[in-house]
Amino acid sequence: MTKPVILALTAGEPAGIGPELCLQLAGENRAAGIVVVAGKNLMEQRARQLGLAVQLHDWQPGVQPETRAGHLSVCHVDGCHFTEAGKLNTGNSQYVLDTLTLAAQGCVNGNFDGMVTAPVHKGVINEAGIAFSGHTEFLQELCGVERVVMMLATEELRVALVTTHLPLKDVSAAITPERLKQVTRILNADLKTFFGIEQPRILVTGLNPHAGEGGHLGREEIEVIEPTLDQLRQENIQLTGPLPADTLFTPHWLDDADAVLAMYHDQGLPVLKYQGFGRAVNITLGLPIVRTSVDHGTALDLACTGKADAGSLHTAIRVGEHMARCRQAATAGELS
Amino acid sequence: MTKPVILALTAGEPAGIGPELCLQLAGENRAAGIVVVAGKNLMEQRARQLGLAVQLHDWQPGVQPETRAGHLSVCHVDGCHFTEAGKLNTGNSQYVLDTLTLAAQGCVNGNFDGMVTAPVHKGVINEAGIAFSGHTEFLQELCGVERVVMMLATEELRVALVTTHLPLKDVSAAITPERLKQVTRILNADLKTFFGIEQPRILVTGLNPHAGEGGHLGREEIEVIEPTLDQLRQENIQLTGPLPADTLFTPHWLDDADAVLAMYHDQGLPVLKYQGFGRAVNITLGLPIVRTSVDHGTALDLACTGKADAGSLHTAIRVGEHMARCRQAATAGELS
Repeated sequence: MTKPVILALTAGEPAGIGPELCLQLAGENRAAGIVVVAGKNLMEQRARQLGLAVQLHDWQPGVQPETRAGHLSVCHVDGCHFTEAGKLNTGNSQYVLDTLTLAAQGCVNGNFDGMVTAPVHKGVINEAGIAFSGHTEFLQELCGVERVVMMLATEELRVALVTTHLPLKDVSAAITPERLKQVTRILNADLKTFFGIEQPRILVTGLNPHAGEGGHLGREEIEVIEPTLDQLRQENIQLTGPLPADTLFTPHWLDDADAVLAMYHDQGLPVLKYQGFGRAVNITLGLPIVRTSVDHGTALDLACTGKADAGSLHTAIRVGEHMARCRQAATAGELS
Repeated sequence: MTKPVILALTAGEPAGIGPELCLQLAGENRAAGIVVVAGKNLMEQRARQLGLAVQLHDWQPGVQPETRAGHLSVCHVDGCHFTEAGKLNTGNSQYVLDTLTLAAQGCVNGNFDGMVTAPVHKGVINEAGIAFSGHTEFLQELCGVERVVMMLATEELRVALVTTHLPLKDVSAAITPERLKQVTRILNADLKTFFGIEQPRILVTGLNPHAGEGGHLGREEIEVIEPTLDQLRQENIQLTGPLPADTLFTPHWLDDADAVLAMYHDQGLPVLKYQGFGRAVNITLGLPIVRTSVDHGTALDLACTGKADAGSLHTAIRVGEHMARCRQAATAGELS
């Protein structure tokens, strides 16, 4: 019998839409056990402001979270000051990071099976004098891993990136054999462990238009990408490419693939977000824990208006739960 | 009363699928007057090979082209040698370029209202010792214009590019104020003239991920793109951006726009081809003539198998006809 999955859900920036998206989850029965990691005072305040009848329950390790409509389990984190929706407050930055630390440590020590993150606001955390460049890097450091991989996914499409938040002019130099190997190995291993795919089939883009057109439009494919993919194939990783990015995203290729590995941000994500508008989820691969995230920002202007759409959060939870179950199965397989 | 539109259709590489796509058009009645520009001997041969009952009619300037099912008008071009489907022959390269010259000159002198091109094979033309880097550049030189703009379109989406077939590492340096101004002005003017859009609304991407995120991920937006767009707005061009490319292709932005201007090839085309798979058309803006093209290659492996899909050619003709009619209307407006 499988153990029920418990996901930690960090409510993110208190002035944004994160807290109310968490409260919206309580509107109906749900399958996954969700523990909102946030200031309970904040959650109570936001429920009152929005007129949502949600009963909050203090959660402790070992307790099964609430799944009934109208009820929500909260793991309280101190330090969230009174906050007006839409108004950032540097005084809450340490609290926000504390929610992330608590959730991640709970994943590491087994209290949680994974974590789902609502959006934080990088700017206000930096303004508070705390160096912070995003959830991904924070969790990477906390878990002590050298390389993580950003993957965005919808029900139909998964796109992982070799490079992420780099100026475009620096992308070519960043596509090294070492990085490409690390990223591809992580993607391949995590598609097995967290998605239950026995032999992942990965499509790889070229770096240049038309994948370099035989060297006429750039030589990185010939000098770096092709030889590196050949080495990786020796490790029994199933790779197709490098393919021209503009024809890769068509049924001819996608129908027989489990994921696309794009070389850079704007090569892979426009089509993913076009395809999965409002239903995309951001997944961090390469961590020892399950981590998914909504695919939108804090939307300060929408906070407390009742207009925030929980579509991406629902997907992030569904994918997080699926990943946690696949890992349970993979671990059980290893133990048996 | 509007004059009937006559489009020249160049049949492209004789060994590829171009000739048979042209023959497929004769399968049904059609609205547009189409003149296939090709070796009549080639067209007869391919029709026999495929068992297509198509009656070919020699076309002369001043004659209305055939539009009846089973009939097709051909403007014969000399020099096409016997060719086996799928086998390239350098002896046909000059003939292929002659079809382009004849069609383009016919557009310039008014015999045709526009030209639609089936695919050519760059490699075999170069092997024949003729410098040729594509239809676009060939027509640009023939028409003597300094700058042309590549735009791909489906029924729902238009994406034009500031840079096209450049190695990725050279893109940043190519995004100059001068180029951005020329391209934007051509796009704006041609959306008016050839698409009948009175005040085109253009979305412009940034160059870097998240459009540079305020300079944290690259400074081209701040130093080049934003000031240039501001100058262009002074010319009454309606521009929105620079926007992050990964969130631009969503209904929030697209619903109120006529075209997207992307900075480079793989930023704009994957989503266009994903969205309009098999129905995309390639349009050259900035020429004094109407030119559309299919959005696929010569497909040598499919030639004469009967499996070639004329979907993109149908779209290219429909769009070419629409562009020609809009220009007639614009010209009539100017004269009245």
